[in-house]
Amino acid sequence: MFDPVEKLKEFIRHPSVSTDSKFRDGMKGAQEFVSGLLQSLGFSVDVVKTDLHPIIFAQRPGDNSWPHVVIYGHYDVQPADPLNLWKIPPFEPTVIGNRIYGRGAADNKGPLLTNIAAVAKALEENPKLPLRITFLVEGEEEMGSPSFPKFLESYADKLREADFVFLSDTALPNEKQVVITCGLRGLALFDVQVTGAKGDLHSGLHGGVLLNPIQALVEMLASLHTPDGRVNVPGFYDDVLDVHPWEREELVKLGADEKEYADFLGIDSFHPTPGFSPFESVRFQPTLEINGIGGGYQGEGTKTVIPSKAFAKISCRLVPNQQPDKIKKLVIDTIRARTPKGVKVEFVDQHKGDPYVVVPPDRSNTPKDQSPVLARAFRAAEQAVAEVWGRPPIYLREGGSVPIIADIKRSTGLDSVMLGLFLPEDNLHAPNESFNLDVMKKGIETSRRILLELAKQ
Amino acid sequence: MFDPVEKLKEFIRHPSVSTDSKFRDGMKGAQEFVSGLLQSLGFSVDVVKTDLHPIIFAQRPGDNSWPHVVIYGHYDVQPADPLNLWKIPPFEPTVIGNRIYGRGAADNKGPLLTNIAAVAKALEENPKLPLRITFLVEGEEEMGSPSFPKFLESYADKLREADFVFLSDTALPNEKQVVITCGLRGLALFDVQVTGAKGDLHSGLHGGVLLNPIQALVEMLASLHTPDGRVNVPGFYDDVLDVHPWEREELVKLGADEKEYADFLGIDSFHPTPGFSPFESVRFQPTLEINGIGGGYQGEGTKTVIPSKAFAKISCRLVPNQQPDKIKKLVIDTIRARTPKGVKVEFVDQHKGDPYVVVPPDRSNTPKDQSPVLARAFRAAEQAVAEVWGRPPIYLREGGSVPIIADIKRSTGLDSVMLGLFLPEDNLHAPNESFNLDVMKKGIETSRRILLELAKQ
Repeated sequence: MFDPVEKLKEFIRHPSVSTDSKFRDGMKGAQEFVSGLLQSLGFSVDVVKTDLHPIIFAQRPGDNSWPHVVIYGHYDVQPADPLNLWKIPPFEPTVIGNRIYGRGAADNKGPLLTNIAAVAKALEENPKLPLRITFLVEGEEEMGSPSFPKFLESYADKLREADFVFLSDTALPNEKQVVITCGLRGLALFDVQVTGAKGDLHSGLHGGVLLNPIQALVEMLASLHTPDGRVNVPGFYDDVLDVHPWEREELVKLGADEKEYADFLGIDSFHPTPGFSPFESVRFQPTLEINGIGGGYQGEGTKTVIPSKAFAKISCRLVPNQQPDKIKKLVIDTIRARTPKGVKVEFVDQHKGDPYVVVPPDRSNTPKDQSPVLARAFRAAEQAVAEVWGRPPIYLREGGSVPIIADIKRSTGLDSVMLGLFLPEDNLHAPNESFNLDVMKKGIETSRRILLELAKQ
Repeated sequence: MFDPVEKLKEFIRHPSVSTDSKFRDGMKGAQEFVSGLLQSLGFSVDVVKTDLHPIIFAQRPGDNSWPHVVIYGHYDVQPADPLNLWKIPPFEPTVIGNRIYGRGAADNKGPLLTNIAAVAKALEENPKLPLRITFLVEGEEEMGSPSFPKFLESYADKLREADFVFLSDTALPNEKQVVITCGLRGLALFDVQVTGAKGDLHSGLHGGVLLNPIQALVEMLASLHTPDGRVNVPGFYDDVLDVHPWEREELVKLGADEKEYADFLGIDSFHPTPGFSPFESVRFQPTLEINGIGGGYQGEGTKTVIPSKAFAKISCRLVPNQQPDKIKKLVIDTIRARTPKGVKVEFVDQHKGDPYVVVPPDRSNTPKDQSPVLARAFRAAEQAVAEVWGRPPIYLREGGSVPIIADIKRSTGLDSVMLGLFLPEDNLHAPNESFNLDVMKKGIETSRRILLELAKQ
């Protein structure tokens, strides 16, 4: 059995930024690392070519009567910038105290390696474990998994033979309380570009004559929210489902403290959707965020220019039953309708993903036809978490997005059991990302128990 | 007599970007180029140290009874970015057709060299020309001349001995019609920085909880204009003087065509201050422009982040009798008052400059105590322009700013005669800046005649 921390360091050292073509070698290195590791565990590895970054499809052969779990993860990571805010080089993993720092440590290299280690342990204990296991590890998660739908078309039949998907790419609210995520927000992303004059202009010679495209942009963007924090796009909330009472009750169990959360974020007041607490808002409500904005001179000192262009990067997080294409169209149509005379507006489509929900067994709204193996998996997870962490998990929707979960459900019918392993302080998508090594240890033991329990029948 | 075009190439080759410390060598090179050239013409050159870039103060000795002209220019240039939009490297001057391309070609290296060449020619014709000439060439104009007030404190007495200032750092509306600029807008510049959470955050895990600082920024910036294009800051227009009827009449003589101007800018509609034509708005009205904006992820693809910070660079162009400090305070107080809960706002002060007007002789509002040499200079310029260009100049205020003109007036009482030499198509402050060589040739001849005429008495 390999040393999980050393293996994780090796994994992080491959700078696998999928959205930036400069990191092609890092992507290849990370893919080969995972493929090699799975091969060493006896998996037959299929590296499935895509238009961009291949998908690793690795199977442990077994009897058709055995339960079949698909373990999902991704080997790509977010860009590391702004680099100057990192205390270590982002691709030189460093253990400080009980944490390992590095880009991708928590999203998703640490949690993925946790599950690979659990499989390794379980197979070491019982090389003849009566469980079919398929690893599905992609390299485009941080880009919105553009190749995944095409992959699913070819592999849906193989996946349909499985019983459920298991993954750790969701959050743990704190070190004591495990959450099994039963809902994810969807995504709808696009850029808006505003053009004024055909070139940059001197703001003295021409200022007062034309509409500055930055000004046009900020006016349009400002109009997209009401002052109280709702998205000000007609129809935006039309398809939002009400939450079930048991979901609000689970959230109460979380016992999250608003003051602590505000301190953690470093803010002095929250700005949730009206009528929702911050913890409810992030799980049960959609958002429209400006992830980036740029235009004109951004350097040292001043440059008195009226720029030709300005742009913003917009993402909407969606909740059931919002549809990404419909929301994109609503927002884009609204921006178009609010474009002032004197500038042109263009849109660049980015990725998207459906929102997702799965209901654990024995709830008021559990589907009557829920797969028995899925129900067993939920129960096995509940038991393992209770034993390893001393407290049963709670079942929550979360604010993040793993769009392929909804894609898999739609094309294969498989639901997912999502065991959260990264903590709020892990700084996902931000400088100084890290992963808690105690969580990793407990995570390996939890997943190991779930796998062994599933294999019992 | 030197070849003005070759000398201009040499001048442009020194990359003298004053706002960026990476260009220290280019600044030194440009300063030494000008100093050396003036020395070669018999001037005694004093390179006056400042906190940043020295000021060249060069005098041609003469009899106290001779008229005394101060010729102003600047050897620094704007930053050249965005570099990818240049068709030549910006500091490798290239003549294409009747234009010389390069950063600073028109602002201000070409026009300054035009006046140096005129002096060279006049002195070649008459080495004993009864005219005192002082060159005043600074290196911080594009930064707002921060060292100039201190310089003026020490040199005000020497300057007070002069009769007027002559310069070519203003615009020519087209190749046929010379403009003598008799008003300049002032400037008030600052940055606004908005901070939300203490670090960048994942927009899935935390989106819906807090106010995104980009959103706060765009809301505040959007509020600074009314939809019809007026600056929406209480008190902003309080001190704006009405224009004199003769100024509007001069503007009519310009015969500028709105359609042509719109085509030149590449816009399909103007956005002037209500009640003013575009040509009036840029000359007679103040502005508030966003020169730059930035925050969050601006790279390829997407990054679903809620950034910690966002910023904008703001400049106001001011008209008589607006005061820069008062306007800065009004705008900053307004932004502060409109800062929503949940973000912090900070301001970085940048430079400033007073607006300026001078009235030519024989106008309804010409000051009774106007200096006779200033009046002669205006008349000499009118005659020279009529002879060289075939049409007398018109007298207009312009939208640009040369803040030291107001500073000189305030501390020495000297007014300025501003002979415009750069064309709208010269792309000042923008990629592919160029200077028209026919204009240069006529400019040399015009300035030469003005100098000779002044020396006649």
